[in-house]
Amino acid sequence: MSAVPPSGLSRLSLNQETIRQWSLPELAEGCVKAGVTGVGLWRAPVQEYGVERAARLMRDAGLAVTSLCRGGFLTGAGAERAAALADNRRAVDEAATLGTGTLVLVSGGLPPGSRDLYAARERIADALAELAPYAAERGVRLAVEPLHPMFASDRCVVSTLGQALDIAERFPAERVGVVVDTYHLWWDDRVAAGIARAGNRIAAFQLADWITPLPAGVLLGRGQLGDGVVDFRRFRELVDATGYTGPIEVEIFNEGLWARDGAEVLAEVADRYVTHALPAPPIPST
Amino acid sequence: MSAVPPSGLSRLSLNQETIRQWSLPELAEGCVKAGVTGVGLWRAPVQEYGVERAARLMRDAGLAVTSLCRGGFLTGAGAERAAALADNRRAVDEAATLGTGTLVLVSGGLPPGSRDLYAARERIADALAELAPYAAERGVRLAVEPLHPMFASDRCVVSTLGQALDIAERFPAERVGVVVDTYHLWWDDRVAAGIARAGNRIAAFQLADWITPLPAGVLLGRGQLGDGVVDFRRFRELVDATGYTGPIEVEIFNEGLWARDGAEVLAEVADRYVTHALPAPPIPST
Repeated sequence: MSAVPPSGLSRLSLNQETIRQWSLPELAEGCVKAGVTGVGLWRAPVQEYGVERAARLMRDAGLAVTSLCRGGFLTGAGAERAAALADNRRAVDEAATLGTGTLVLVSGGLPPGSRDLYAARERIADALAELAPYAAERGVRLAVEPLHPMFASDRCVVSTLGQALDIAERFPAERVGVVVDTYHLWWDDRVAAGIARAGNRIAAFQLADWITPLPAGVLLGRGQLGDGVVDFRRFRELVDATGYTGPIEVEIFNEGLWARDGAEVLAEVADRYVTHALPAPPIPST
Repeated sequence: MSAVPPSGLSRLSLNQETIRQWSLPELAEGCVKAGVTGVGLWRAPVQEYGVERAARLMRDAGLAVTSLCRGGFLTGAGAERAAALADNRRAVDEAATLGTGTLVLVSGGLPPGSRDLYAARERIADALAELAPYAAERGVRLAVEPLHPMFASDRCVVSTLGQALDIAERFPAERVGVVVDTYHLWWDDRVAAGIARAGNRIAAFQLADWITPLPAGVLLGRGQLGDGVVDFRRFRELVDATGYTGPIEVEIFNEGLWARDGAEVLAEVADRYVTHALPAPPIPST
């Protein structure tokens, strides 16, 4: 009997940044070989390869594109805001071309000189009011991602699932959803209530572990599943309880993983995913 | 007219780690010269100098010891718990000798192998039930400090003011209070409600600014007041509104400040404190 039955991986999606040493063709081939049926993509490598070409590559390999990262950075004003909206419309177009219904948004930090988190979050909501109809016409849902509070000043003023929902709930659920990423939310004692509240707004469910010490800049400090303190099984159960049956995407930014053989990393990801996120196997009777 | 009237510094306290390049005698002399009347002390340098001797030094200089950092690390079990309780009793004794009524507690991270933040916080409450009567007999209030969520796994499972209050409120307010530190709480949209709820439980009010990028390990990433995104005036007004009239302690861990002349750093701290935390001066009539 295989330790990792093929069906165990049916919901697993590999975010390409987890194995950024792979080109897009390597990613497609590696996933097919490993029995992984979904991928999360990033705009820069897709643009470099060609958006149509990347879409064809994944389609031909039988891979679902589960999300595109990322739009957002919507907290600026004036010319900066206009440029951000234009760029987000391009991101929507790319998502539509790739055949994914989910564009992940990292909403942006405080504008230079501002100390007003509330005003910055209102700007995000204003921008979504312009973007959401455009995205809906193209079959793309905007997914507001709360980032860990350590990113609140420079990357994302949306720090909790509750704040993300406060914004998303101003729009129809099929137009604006939220991302549940364990790395960003694991510490929050209100996350169970937030996930229940999110209900059918969960547009993406992403896994990474929390490990310390954090590296300088803290962006690349994510851990392989099981190496840290996140209770993935509990998160998956909470998300399952909303009725979400979509992909579970593993997105780890970690230089140690990037230095290793990609196939080996993916095998480890699949193994850890089964061990830590899926239901525990029944205890065999003796 | 002086830009910084002496009365403007009446509530300012200098936490010694802000100018860790100073010995305790240098700290006492430097504060007296700068018109700063309070100091926050740390156990290690005080123990090295001698607790009684440090108490005499500050008393003779006319300086109030506004807090002692730190007790805590109360999330362990078994022998670890017993050792932590014994160490915290020593910390209480040291605080009493120094004449401060406030012992700051950094509560501790997740025990090795645990992923249960809730259980860890319950252990803290259990430990406080043993420590609080001992501290009260010696005139010392235990002050639970919420630390930024980026410290939740390895340093302090109490990440929000709400969580700190959930623990503190199990005890009489004069025995267990909380610390309001802008560096840890600035990002939280519930902090205004938390400060109002804290009321007379605010045992210490500490200031540091949030700046990025964060350094490796993130512990020494705090910014001089005004260099980052914290709205100190708003925090001070919220804390004032509870009726708190106690010291306002500046506690910045920053290697850049440690490399400079201590007197120059303290003059800058005083100037930034007046500019950013005190009420804005009235606009002169023309």
